[in-house]
Amino acid sequence: MMSTPSEPRTLSEIGEFGLINRIASHLAMPPSVSVGPGDDAAVFLVNGSAVITVDLMIEGHDFRRDWSSPADVGHKAVASSVADIESMGATPTIMVIGLGAPASLEYVWVKEFMTGVREEADLAGVALVGGDLATAQQIAISVTVVGETAGRTPVLRSGARPGQVVAVRGRLGWASAGLAALARGFRSPRAAVDSQRAPKVPYGAGREAADAGASAMIDVSDGLLADLRHIADASGVGIDLEAARFQIAEPVAVVAAALHINPLSFVLTGGEDHAMAATFDPGRVPADWDVVGLVVEADAELGPLVLVDGHAWEGEQGWTHFR
Amino acid sequence: MMSTPSEPRTLSEIGEFGLINRIASHLAMPPSVSVGPGDDAAVFLVNGSAVITVDLMIEGHDFRRDWSSPADVGHKAVASSVADIESMGATPTIMVIGLGAPASLEYVWVKEFMTGVREEADLAGVALVGGDLATAQQIAISVTVVGETAGRTPVLRSGARPGQVVAVRGRLGWASAGLAALARGFRSPRAAVDSQRAPKVPYGAGREAADAGASAMIDVSDGLLADLRHIADASGVGIDLEAARFQIAEPVAVVAAALHINPLSFVLTGGEDHAMAATFDPGRVPADWDVVGLVVEADAELGPLVLVDGHAWEGEQGWTHFR
Repeated sequence: MMSTPSEPRTLSEIGEFGLINRIASHLAMPPSVSVGPGDDAAVFLVNGSAVITVDLMIEGHDFRRDWSSPADVGHKAVASSVADIESMGATPTIMVIGLGAPASLEYVWVKEFMTGVREEADLAGVALVGGDLATAQQIAISVTVVGETAGRTPVLRSGARPGQVVAVRGRLGWASAGLAALARGFRSPRAAVDSQRAPKVPYGAGREAADAGASAMIDVSDGLLADLRHIADASGVGIDLEAARFQIAEPVAVVAAALHINPLSFVLTGGEDHAMAATFDPGRVPADWDVVGLVVEADAELGPLVLVDGHAWEGEQGWTHFR
Repeated sequence: MMSTPSEPRTLSEIGEFGLINRIASHLAMPPSVSVGPGDDAAVFLVNGSAVITVDLMIEGHDFRRDWSSPADVGHKAVASSVADIESMGATPTIMVIGLGAPASLEYVWVKEFMTGVREEADLAGVALVGGDLATAQQIAISVTVVGETAGRTPVLRSGARPGQVVAVRGRLGWASAGLAALARGFRSPRAAVDSQRAPKVPYGAGREAADAGASAMIDVSDGLLADLRHIADASGVGIDLEAARFQIAEPVAVVAAALHINPLSFVLTGGEDHAMAATFDPGRVPADWDVVGLVVEADAELGPLVLVDGHAWEGEQGWTHFR
């Protein structure tokens, strides 16, 4: 075996090309990728129809280094971008990452960030095929993910029809409850705080919904009410949720009780969990999705509204991003 | 006609969705794009084999707002990323952009930036199909471009063989001469300064080279010597350039004379012009490319070197990025 050279301490010590070589040497490429990192661009095969999305995360606005480990940030960056491919009912395949960072950033931060990226990429079934590095005051991360429709019709926001049901799969309110705890100096309940640091995206749920004939779908990044409003707007419908249908997860209930907040506020307005929300014909909802409401006609005067038990939600708002 | 509402002044005034709607309303989609901006992801057709690259630009490191207009920054962001697709011999088709910016940034800056993006996208033949916005202290721009191989074999860095010739197409040294002028407080010569603000990429040159059988290719982003070194390393060859073959463009000569610098330093080590450099069998160089050197065997002791007239370049170095 060759001896291991001593590790560089900062990005400026290792340099751009040294860092790229170290990152690229850890990556395995799937058969569909004929050229991976290291050339001007990567080359990959697509089955004809492709899906693409980009997500940008900025230190201090989308994550904090004192709240999240480097690996958490890597997990979150990949998960939040892949969720947009999942919510089209598509199969994520490859991604490229842009990383802006101070030259003084410790090399070990980037190394552990990349460990999180690789772990989440494995969970999501996506391959990192390329990237770019730049010098920046704050850490800035862009993740672009490409997916294949794999024969499915992409599920847009615009297909919801009155008479259909609204269903969700994945966590709701966990990340925002975790944020509320962190913001008050707590590091528990651990499950909620961990959800804020890195969401648990229900990978595969989007394809499952597409196969079941979902008519509209979105991933919950800004909060269920806000994101369902996008479906209502795009589809020209109203949505009426039924409060009693939502199960309050224990970590969410614990934070809500400690802060004297209605736990439904976290569930309905909390972002960053990247649960899937979709509309289906009644009786066609996949087994592991929860029906939480109905698609109705848009209000004759007010247009496409999202209501809870027939009324506008008047609880706490804004448990979304900490930006 | 509807009356035009007064323009918002800052990004925080217009808000994320308002900004996205304004940007998206100006975009025309090609027939290959079935879903453009506004859903969770965009959907587009690919002919089987695709090429992808990402480029990150950070304010203060890759551009300065006091040196470059917002439109310049838009042109540069698109051009520098598309150049990586061109240098694979591929056809750029679609792109997504991530924009991080302070909430206090004037809306007019983003509007003019997008004008530059659209103008350069039209030149390059690429469609903006989606994006993401985030709050950041500095402006951070990520441009991901996807291209099609369109039946061509992608031209990598690794195919150069001894006995072939090295040829270039596009500007060399203009952007770095412009940077040297700007750094000393000058705004002229205008052509050089404009090249620093927004490069003139020779769109189509990469495909032309691929059709002519180019064996290796790269776009000159870090400087000709540095970028040819990537070809030499990947191909396991040496490269010997002939100084007398380089024509010194007038704007480069003017800056060099004013600063008492050898103009070849700009040509050989200046970055950010995004000229194309490629290797060809002798006699197969396209008409509008300039032969500037030869591919030779790698040095028996020192390995893959890039030499000028048989010697290591000893002129000024580092006329690359101003980061």
